[in-house]
Amino acid sequence: MVLAQQVLLDVPGERGRAAAGVLAAATRRLIRGQVDDVRFEGQPDISLAQCAQMAADKTGALMGASTALGAVLAGAPARTVRALQEFGEELGMAFQLVDDVLGIWGDPEATGKPVLSDLRSRKNSLPVSYALSRHDHYSLELTAWLADRDCADEARLWVIAALVEAAGGRDWAEKEARRRLDRSERLLRDAKVAPSVVDELVALGRFIVSRES
Amino acid sequence: MVLAQQVLLDVPGERGRAAAGVLAAATRRLIRGQVDDVRFEGQPDISLAQCAQMAADKTGALMGASTALGAVLAGAPARTVRALQEFGEELGMAFQLVDDVLGIWGDPEATGKPVLSDLRSRKNSLPVSYALSRHDHYSLELTAWLADRDCADEARLWVIAALVEAAGGRDWAEKEARRRLDRSERLLRDAKVAPSVVDELVALGRFIVSRES
Repeated sequence: MVLAQQVLLDVPGERGRAAAGVLAAATRRLIRGQVDDVRFEGQPDISLAQCAQMAADKTGALMGASTALGAVLAGAPARTVRALQEFGEELGMAFQLVDDVLGIWGDPEATGKPVLSDLRSRKNSLPVSYALSRHDHYSLELTAWLADRDCADEARLWVIAALVEAAGGRDWAEKEARRRLDRSERLLRDAKVAPSVVDELVALGRFIVSRES
Repeated sequence: MVLAQQVLLDVPGERGRAAAGVLAAATRRLIRGQVDDVRFEGQPDISLAQCAQMAADKTGALMGASTALGAVLAGAPARTVRALQEFGEELGMAFQLVDDVLGIWGDPEATGKPVLSDLRSRKNSLPVSYALSRHDHYSLELTAWLADRDCADEARLWVIAALVEAAGGRDWAEKEARRRLDRSERLLRDAKVAPSVVDELVALGRFIVSRES
């Protein structure tokens, strides 16, 4: 990140300084998001809005900076830069939602993570946070099970996964990922960007989001 | 049932005898279905096909006889009788699927049954049977929880409900009810029945199936 910053600052003129500013802001958000991610673990009273903000900081910010930087360096109009940045932010959120679903229900052979890994670490991921926000019978049970750290055997984790799924956490996350991806594509098509670039970025976005679970 | 049988046998000629035969066959299946319903309670190794057959006997048979009897007594052609009987059987299955969903997730104020009543009695209802048939992590847990009869407090029953729902039992039952209702309407429209009768029976079917959960 420091190296990237130096490279951008080496670009002569205003554009290099602006690009370095975009990267610096994203880096600050990335750090805040990572800190919140760990800080929120095992805290069932964190709201869905707080979790979504954490995900936007942790994943959306850097993805938004990445898709905006080229336009900044090329001296594109502010609204094009903004559209590309929003495209990246939405795509980052879609990616994070898919990542969170895989962190619970993903096949370990495909993800490289142990089965149920995000539940094992009591991560307040987006599907869990959504389920807790429902305040129905399932979320009450889920709160109780998450609070009890005594026993973390796999059978118990599957019960927690079932409570998250029954409360609609998985379905919501999958639909929300789809919605964010669709929104990112609309933002991109509305921006003044060459059609071939749009097509490439859309394909890239779909590739990132469509990992197998 | 005995009285209905006598009334039909009082109808002079072949039609009354045929109608009484239809009712007797339905009654035999009804009794078998009711016996199986109780016999299957707490038996997680009953297959989904067995449960579906039980529901068809318990609910479909009498509904099919009810919708067929008028046509039998009116001397309608055999294929019209058959279509009306199948219409009723499919409608009965749709009704039973909705009833089973309400037996777990229905609002006690609307159903008049205590919350989670079918789980409390360990009834092998269709959503539970479907969930068990999946043979995934949830169904393995579900089998274990259903086998353990020690503790039947409400918190525990909500965990069982979550396992059934996460395994797709609720969603399957709702979709299957819809599919059966649609099929019943197609059967009816294909039968040689007056359009006004079709409309009335379709409206009746939708009313029966669309109880609020």
